[in-house]
Amino acid sequence: MKVLVIGAHPDDAEVRCGGLALQYTSRGHRVKFVSATNGDTGHHEIGGIELARRRYREAQAAAEVAGVHEYQILDLHTGELEPTIANRKTIIRIIREYDPDVLITHRPNDYHPDHRYTATLVQDASYIVTVPNMVALTDIPSRLPNIFYMHDWFRKPIPFQPDVVVAIDEVIEKKIDMLHCHESQFYEWLPFNQGILDQVPEAEQERKQWLASWRLPYFEKVADAYREQLIRLYGPRGKTVRYAEAFEACEYGAGVSAEQVLELFPFFD
Amino acid sequence: MKVLVIGAHPDDAEVRCGGLALQYTSRGHRVKFVSATNGDTGHHEIGGIELARRRYREAQAAAEVAGVHEYQILDLHTGELEPTIANRKTIIRIIREYDPDVLITHRPNDYHPDHRYTATLVQDASYIVTVPNMVALTDIPSRLPNIFYMHDWFRKPIPFQPDVVVAIDEVIEKKIDMLHCHESQFYEWLPFNQGILDQVPEAEQERKQWLASWRLPYFEKVADAYREQLIRLYGPRGKTVRYAEAFEACEYGAGVSAEQVLELFPFFD
Amino acid sequence: MKVLVIGAHPDDAEVRCGGLALQYTSRGHRVKFVSATNGDTGHHEIGGIELARRRYREAQAAAEVAGVHEYQILDLHTGELEPTIANRKTIIRIIREYDPDVLITHRPNDYHPDHRYTATLVQDASYIVTVPNMVALTDIPSRLPNIFYMHDWFRKPIPFQPDVVVAIDEVIEKKIDMLHCHESQFYEWLPFNQGILDQVPEAEQERKQWLASWRLPYFEKVADAYREQLIRLYGPRGKTVRYAEAFEACEYGAGVSAEQVLELFPFFD
Amino acid sequence: MKVLVIGAHPDDAEVRCGGLALQYTSRGHRVKFVSATNGDTGHHEIGGIELARRRYREAQAAAEVAGVHEYQILDLHTGELEPTIANRKTIIRIIREYDPDVLITHRPNDYHPDHRYTATLVQDASYIVTVPNMVALTDIPSRLPNIFYMHDWFRKPIPFQPDVVVAIDEVIEKKIDMLHCHESQFYEWLPFNQGILDQVPEAEQERKQWLASWRLPYFEKVADAYREQLIRLYGPRGKTVRYAEAFEACEYGAGVSAEQVLELFPFFD
Amino acid sequence: MKVLVIGAHPDDAEVRCGGLALQYTSRGHRVKFVSATNGDTGHHEIGGIELARRRYREAQAAAEVAGVHEYQILDLHTGELEPTIANRKTIIRIIREYDPDVLITHRPNDYHPDHRYTATLVQDASYIVTVPNMVALTDIPSRLPNIFYMHDWFRKPIPFQPDVVVAIDEVIEKKIDMLHCHESQFYEWLPFNQGILDQVPEAEQERKQWLASWRLPYFEKVADAYREQLIRLYGPRGKTVRYAEAFEACEYGAGVSAEQVLELFPFFD
Amino acid sequence: MKVLVIGAHPDDAEVRCGGLALQYTSRGHRVKFVSATNGDTGHHEIGGIELARRRYREAQAAAEVAGVHEYQILDLHTGELEPTIANRKTIIRIIREYDPDVLITHRPNDYHPDHRYTATLVQDASYIVTVPNMVALTDIPSRLPNIFYMHDWFRKPIPFQPDVVVAIDEVIEKKIDMLHCHESQFYEWLPFNQGILDQVPEAEQERKQWLASWRLPYFEKVADAYREQLIRLYGPRGKTVRYAEAFEACEYGAGVSAEQVLELFPFFD
Repeated sequence: MKVLVIGAHPDDAEVRCGGLALQYTSRGHRVKFVSATNGDTGHHEIGGIELARRRYREAQAAAEVAGVHEYQILDLHTGELEPTIANRKTIIRIIREYDPDVLITHRPNDYHPDHRYTATLVQDASYIVTVPNMVALTDIPSRLPNIFYMHDWFRKPIPFQPDVVVAIDEVIEKKIDMLHCHESQFYEWLPFNQGILDQVPEAEQERKQWLASWRLPYFEKVADAYREQLIRLYGPRGKTVRYAEAFEACEYGAGVSAEQVLELFPFFD
Repeated sequence: MKVLVIGAHPDDAEVRCGGLALQYTSRGHRVKFVSATNGDTGHHEIGGIELARRRYREAQAAAEVAGVHEYQILDLHTGELEPTIANRKTIIRIIREYDPDVLITHRPNDYHPDHRYTATLVQDASYIVTVPNMVALTDIPSRLPNIFYMHDWFRKPIPFQPDVVVAIDEVIEKKIDMLHCHESQFYEWLPFNQGILDQVPEAEQERKQWLASWRLPYFEKVADAYREQLIRLYGPRGKTVRYAEAFEACEYGAGVSAEQVLELFPFFD
Repeated sequence: MKVLVIGAHPDDAEVRCGGLALQYTSRGHRVKFVSATNGDTGHHEIGGIELARRRYREAQAAAEVAGVHEYQILDLHTGELEPTIANRKTIIRIIREYDPDVLITHRPNDYHPDHRYTATLVQDASYIVTVPNMVALTDIPSRLPNIFYMHDWFRKPIPFQPDVVVAIDEVIEKKIDMLHCHESQFYEWLPFNQGILDQVPEAEQERKQWLASWRLPYFEKVADAYREQLIRLYGPRGKTVRYAEAFEACEYGAGVSAEQVLELFPFFD
Repeated sequence: MKVLVIGAHPDDAEVRCGGLALQYTSRGHRVKFVSATNGDTGHHEIGGIELARRRYREAQAAAEVAGVHEYQILDLHTGELEPTIANRKTIIRIIREYDPDVLITHRPNDYHPDHRYTATLVQDASYIVTVPNMVALTDIPSRLPNIFYMHDWFRKPIPFQPDVVVAIDEVIEKKIDMLHCHESQFYEWLPFNQGILDQVPEAEQERKQWLASWRLPYFEKVADAYREQLIRLYGPRGKTVRYAEAFEACEYGAGVSAEQVLELFPFFD
Repeated sequence: MKVLVIGAHPDDAEVRCGGLALQYTSRGHRVKFVSATNGDTGHHEIGGIELARRRYREAQAAAEVAGVHEYQILDLHTGELEPTIANRKTIIRIIREYDPDVLITHRPNDYHPDHRYTATLVQDASYIVTVPNMVALTDIPSRLPNIFYMHDWFRKPIPFQPDVVVAIDEVIEKKIDMLHCHESQFYEWLPFNQGILDQVPEAEQERKQWLASWRLPYFEKVADAYREQLIRLYGPRGKTVRYAEAFEACEYGAGVSAEQVLELFPFFD
Repeated sequence: MKVLVIGAHPDDAEVRCGGLALQYTSRGHRVKFVSATNGDTGHHEIGGIELARRRYREAQAAAEVAGVHEYQILDLHTGELEPTIANRKTIIRIIREYDPDVLITHRPNDYHPDHRYTATLVQDASYIVTVPNMVALTDIPSRLPNIFYMHDWFRKPIPFQPDVVVAIDEVIEKKIDMLHCHESQFYEWLPFNQGILDQVPEAEQERKQWLASWRLPYFEKVADAYREQLIRLYGPRGKTVRYAEAFEACEYGAGVSAEQVLELFPFFD
């Protein structure tokens, strides 16, 4: 199986579906991460080349932890992504060349404009990846990809409705390891942005614990919110799942039946 | 009555409201079709000038079958339609010059980006057609047009909610004739795109039968899905309607009361 | 407290939250109005410089009535507002420099494209105002602003859901005075647009009465529609409120608890 | 013969080649004027719809005086013309549909950005009008048009180098009549812009005399500057020509030999 | 030595510097061709996918004849190339990754807009390829490339001024072989465009002779025009050179002394 | 007198006309510098917010040395400046609000695309600053500004032709002080870019000497190149001028006679 995750920033794939990626790679499937922007503005003190290169290295490190064979970073300004035809064609090319079984991206109504426009770009590319006459020099993929949205908590115009909820308990440590690679994000920018920079420990090991204590509740909350689906998918074991990630099928991808979900996400036995 | 249908591609008007168009024209009303793009990429083997011209001829042939007095094709690339101010002004000009009683277009959340952006363009033009100072050299129309969306099956962020469902049983043959004009679509591109190219018959007559057997179920499904509305609008006769097309009022057009619907769609007696 | 209202046109702030503005200013809080466009096309007979300057003067007059300390007009064409990166950065700069406690704008699904794209611009600016690296030469504000949408009646994809409903009975006269300043709108363009130009009285005093009789029912309708919330917020007094304005929290602003609402809108005791 | 003049504003064609137009029309040739913008900002007191419509009427009046059979005004903002692909395609369509023997426009280095970008648009359209695959639904013309630049006095990067200089003595009165139609330009905006508004007479007949005294020296200066070419083209009569207009062949049009010049400009016998 | 040729269309590199490329490759240097557009509109009967793919294959065949190790085709519409920041960044990436000693492109004032904007893009990329902070994830090249313009005959604002003229007598047959690969251009589109389609022979061998007789005079004309430079560079042998290609140093590339020219173009001994 | 210098980057004004600025300010005239971009990419190691803010501070320090009362930095990405209508309007607003007697900018054919597009923006703004209907809410200036280009050595399509050459001998030390403020440019980025980073001394005083020895020859070369003009303007004293800056009148500004030059540049007695 080939899985393609298109996030807006270097770390979105990790945060929202790092556990899923680990589930795939640990079973021998191929996963590729894409960041639609280069991360060059998500910081309070540095930016431009210094930040873009640092975040590139962080992303590559995270990819290694995840067993992800490629982490492609589009060299576009973070905070300025637009749903232009030029960007649409770039996304079309990436999807065609990778030809994924499963394609994962943001919902079009998340809090960050780059998230929203990444979603728009993927939606706008979706059907057109099957039209040979657009981006004529790159062959169409073998099928319309199955597109899934990563989880978010926003409720308007419509709340997230999970079609797949994946337990990540057995890989949760590695997922934290992935986030730990993103130093500039999790120990610098996001703490600054949330006003908790003074809480970040200095020492490597303490940092990681702090990171876990900060981030794990989010994944617990997902498991609790979608407990019913966990039980439906995992059987009784679903009751005790502690950490989860959730995904919603996008209507503009290939239609996905309940059976296909089991095939595309082969984790439920 | 004057009816204006603005679709994204040459054949969208036919597929989604060809029956409605026939109901109007057969009663002596005027109908105009517009395609917001020239169809130059919807094919797997040809494109550009050859395809644009072929699809232009196919559209003109379909217009003749429908009794539609004009089928205008905007010479913009299919697959690359954008909601620019320049395109908005083109749509404003078309609406003003035709001054329709009823204006029909896509919903803004259909599977093809050109459908979505056609809808955006019509929505963005809607109120502004009444503002004389935009596109100042073309007079405003006599009123804000009543805008209706063509049917689709997408459910997010909100499913299609029909305000009008029109029986097309008595014109269904002619509707198939209209689609039959679109050779490059229905016997070449779409079968290729759906992986059934080998099923397309060679001979003219067999082709048309095949086309009917492929497409009629869609129109049956619409009738069945909105049976209640059919009965409300047609009375008992609504129970036996076999094929239908459905339309939803757009809030950005003139508000339409139930009585006005009966006036604008004079088919229910 | 500092309140920033970003509307699409000179008069949107007045019409949709003029009463709220008066409630703030009469209690000594600071309010700033912004119009994202210059109003240069909203008329049937004049436009360009003449209209832009006239509407500028009308807006300044309304600001004075409202006790609003600044009414900034962006010099962009009305009817042609686009959610470009350049416009996004302008909005970011305005929000940062004012650093509001409360930020009020349109919903993204109102009838006028300028309203919709003003909302898009504010949403797209929302999180990014806190990112120092975007518009790097303007300091970030002290916090993510609390964003609220002004009321509208549109129902799709989702109807307006008020989080705050504010009684404006005691300031209703002054609100009409504010609208009265917008001569070119309320006595010329809108009556023309709605086909009631012949009803507009000549004499100053009659005009204002006519304006009140035309506009007050709208504010009554708001109070009636959200009576329950009025009672919840005002207690028994809420039953007799006659005129109201309503506001809905935007999910992309800072999250707002019920207590914070009472703090940000200190009118309910 | 068919002649197409593409200026930036309503009156550019008249000012820079009104005499030439009259020479053609008085000999039974067809001339069409195009203004690439609608003139909606060239005034100090009015603008938008009022100015655009007024300038439209003035242009039509001037066209009648000139015997020009059509004066097309593109409804684009004056002062904001850009060499976009959308505008390029509009120019291509106009050239193809008219299929001119002679096409006249601005040089790309005149003082007004609209002049420069009109020139750029014509240059960018020039070869492509012969490529059937661009704007595929409009047939290519019978030939690459002969393109000539209207005269200007700018010297960098290279001064104007006339290939044709046309005497306009016998039509000079009518040319002044054409300019006289442009009231909003010649009696209002340009005098204001040049600080001589107080010199403009009130009465119709005095105005026209004043206009002539203001404008004739320009045409005399052209005749004097290119006296040599006048003599070469007209023989001894060239010595006494008083008023002239001058044109330079554009290298991106069809190459024009000296003989072809005589054919295309049949005024020199 | 590494040589990079960036033309606007598949065949521009061949036509304007195919001989030079052969001189390099026959001496063991590396040459790469780039076409900034995909050629999808340069034809009278076909276009889009069919033409883009055909021209891609023709380009690859020509590359093989030339010994050029890569012929990259950017998948952008021919006839619609724009000097956008997105396209500039693509060109920057190509130059950096190839890191050429010599970079060859069009002059900014050739007859085809795609030629002009290809030149603009290369000029706009030129200095910026050395700025690590633009396209921060691709390393800067080892030096500012030496940029040369391919020959054209246009004279305004300034005629072509050759810094290098290269004899191509010994490779002229192979150059014709390269052009011969471009069937869709030299036997279809260009003859149609020039009105000589009826002269094109059917048979392979006759075609190639016809092609040679049509094209060789152009290369002779270049040799004759710049005879002086040929003699300066080649010594007495320059007098008898029959076919040549000429190149002009672009001021925005690295400055090139006469000695460096001899080093970069090692053909003159 | 009021002088406005619009450069592309923070330091362009200093490098190309810092001496002139000092001549004005030391005589009590007002000078304002503008940088059309924020300098956020001109470095090999840092960028974004860190660089933009550092260069902002350096620019303010240089302004103080120069006695320049304001150094405005537009917060646009360096390396990505485009001649959009939005940017044009920003430049129009700046020119109008400052209402300069003398406006100085780049030539449109310098080596850096930001220089070229800054020049394009100023040229495109030039006439339009006098049109009240563009940017209607900002009053037009008292006159069309006299525009001059800063010196460069490029020769195509036309070399720099000085109308004014100003001796800067008596302020040369202060000019070096101005450049010295631009640490990130003159001791980091430019030396890196030119491969001489290892030559930059550590100590403050040595650095400044090194800077002087690197930069002074350029200003000597200007004096030598335009010796004739120096003598014409200064009389015999012109023979011994050692350092100079040169300026060329732009044809799209107000026409400038030789007398006016003496008035606008009151340094020659």
